[in-house]
Amino acid sequence: MSERAGKQTIVSMAELETFLANEFPQAFGPGRPHTVVALGPRTATVRLDAGEDHLRPGGTVSGPSMMGLADVAVYVALLGQIGLVPLAVTTNLSINFLRKPAPGPLFADARLIKLGKRLAVGDVGLRGEGDGDLVAHCVATYSVPDRR
Amino acid sequence: MSERAGKQTIVSMAELETFLANEFPQAFGPGRPHTVVALGPRTATVRLDAGEDHLRPGGTVSGPSMMGLADVAVYVALLGQIGLVPLAVTTNLSINFLRKPAPGPLFADARLIKLGKRLAVGDVGLRGEGDGDLVAHCVATYSVPDRR
Amino acid sequence: MSERAGKQTIVSMAELETFLANEFPQAFGPGRPHTVVALGPRTATVRLDAGEDHLRPGGTVSGPSMMGLADVAVYVALLGQIGLVPLAVTTNLSINFLRKPAPGPLFADARLIKLGKRLAVGDVGLRGEGDGDLVAHCVATYSVPDRR
Amino acid sequence: MSERAGKQTIVSMAELETFLANEFPQAFGPGRPHTVVALGPRTATVRLDAGEDHLRPGGTVSGPSMMGLADVAVYVALLGQIGLVPLAVTTNLSINFLRKPAPGPLFADARLIKLGKRLAVGDVGLRGEGDGDLVAHCVATYSVPDRR
Repeated sequence: MSERAGKQTIVSMAELETFLANEFPQAFGPGRPHTVVALGPRTATVRLDAGEDHLRPGGTVSGPSMMGLADVAVYVALLGQIGLVPLAVTTNLSINFLRKPAPGPLFADARLIKLGKRLAVGDVGLRGEGDGDLVAHCVATYSVPDRR
Repeated sequence: MSERAGKQTIVSMAELETFLANEFPQAFGPGRPHTVVALGPRTATVRLDAGEDHLRPGGTVSGPSMMGLADVAVYVALLGQIGLVPLAVTTNLSINFLRKPAPGPLFADARLIKLGKRLAVGDVGLRGEGDGDLVAHCVATYSVPDRR
Repeated sequence: MSERAGKQTIVSMAELETFLANEFPQAFGPGRPHTVVALGPRTATVRLDAGEDHLRPGGTVSGPSMMGLADVAVYVALLGQIGLVPLAVTTNLSINFLRKPAPGPLFADARLIKLGKRLAVGDVGLRGEGDGDLVAHCVATYSVPDRR
Repeated sequence: MSERAGKQTIVSMAELETFLANEFPQAFGPGRPHTVVALGPRTATVRLDAGEDHLRPGGTVSGPSMMGLADVAVYVALLGQIGLVPLAVTTNLSINFLRKPAPGPLFADARLIKLGKRLAVGDVGLRGEGDGDLVAHCVATYSVPDRR
């Protein structure tokens, strides 16, 4: 598959936040748990400040919340490259849970390792605040809509 | 890895429901979206009646909700074999999203394809009500606690 | 993604064998280790009679040989549906090794769980001869070439 | 799972090469296609000079050969940490094929992202010589034998 040419981010952080708050009103926006904290060429970092819905007894973030965070981080990195198109969908996601996360915010650092005409693949590390050890590692594939 | 000997379910549905409502109070119990609808030798089916938190715009169940449903269905099938021990943890989960689910309840049919001393692996199909086509397919690995 | 309409196999076993012997001359053909033993609607079974190249010390089939067998079984099931086109490529493969295989032939039973315009997904169980317990379980995604 | 304490490599390159040539005589040793080219703390790089058995028509390395290369690179990184024990086995491997590799040698750069008492997880990038773009990306889990 040929690669899309551009490696520049074509979306601003403000545009992205407005788009995400509209598309995922439970996740993004004022008072919501997810925030985009960085957007670069083929990369993005999303922060999760877990509320009660995302926690397991003991105060650690639940598995599905980590999966959702990883998934959305790849989506954000992808939107930064292809623009604010709502039709990209996850086709495959594989995650390894490595350590129990400490209480506190979680960060997902996503990096696109492929950006093709049909498919994009992102690699994601999940970590706590200021902590190098990954709590989980994920790879997700998106199907990219046709563009003109 | 040697296989655990028994293939009989050692837990009743009622015991299981009480355990799950205590361990996952947001997910299981009266008024909660998840229900165990079948438990067999190495198999389990869990139903999700998605509320607003689990839906995407348009009324389809979100990806993280499907991942959580698949994960818990393997957990239930495992608990049916090893008993109500809270220490089994997911180490790996891989999911393929195959079709957009229709509105309405989702069902996860899990089947353990390995039940070893250390690891258990379950295969899960997600489907709508009375519909043979899978909306997603998942394989999840659990680390099983040491038993005496 | 819309599904391709037909569920009938459009290729005969003889056509398939000729095609595979040309495309994978090290794997298929007279004296080669792989044989297609069944082809059905969205299903295929491929047999591996492992030679020295495929064995690990102790006489069990190596991991890469099992991965290759699983991959090709999905490919065969796919060719049975879309015809003998050489351009379908694997984009993702995930395998769980469940038990050490006994010496002797291995069989991969593949079943397509999605056959879309762009992507096909197959689920594969690997087993020994006449033995119900899976030695490995695999899910593979193929990118399907555009058709006219 | 608690982490193993040491992050130092406890095996020399020469010890490793002797061990691998004994354990995988078809893959490692004089005249064989695989070579360990780097070994560091939790990292390893393995090179594949593909012979006819590893090539597809057109001269590109086959999928199973890439899977085998990725798998063995994680194994080498693991042996560098736990010593030359033959009992570590792959339990799960997930690979994304990103681009068709150019003819020539392939390199697998593995990094352990978890080294627990029971499980080790490695992340692997596959690339051509002097080329930054990954041709494939893989994550593999090993079951680690009990140690005294």
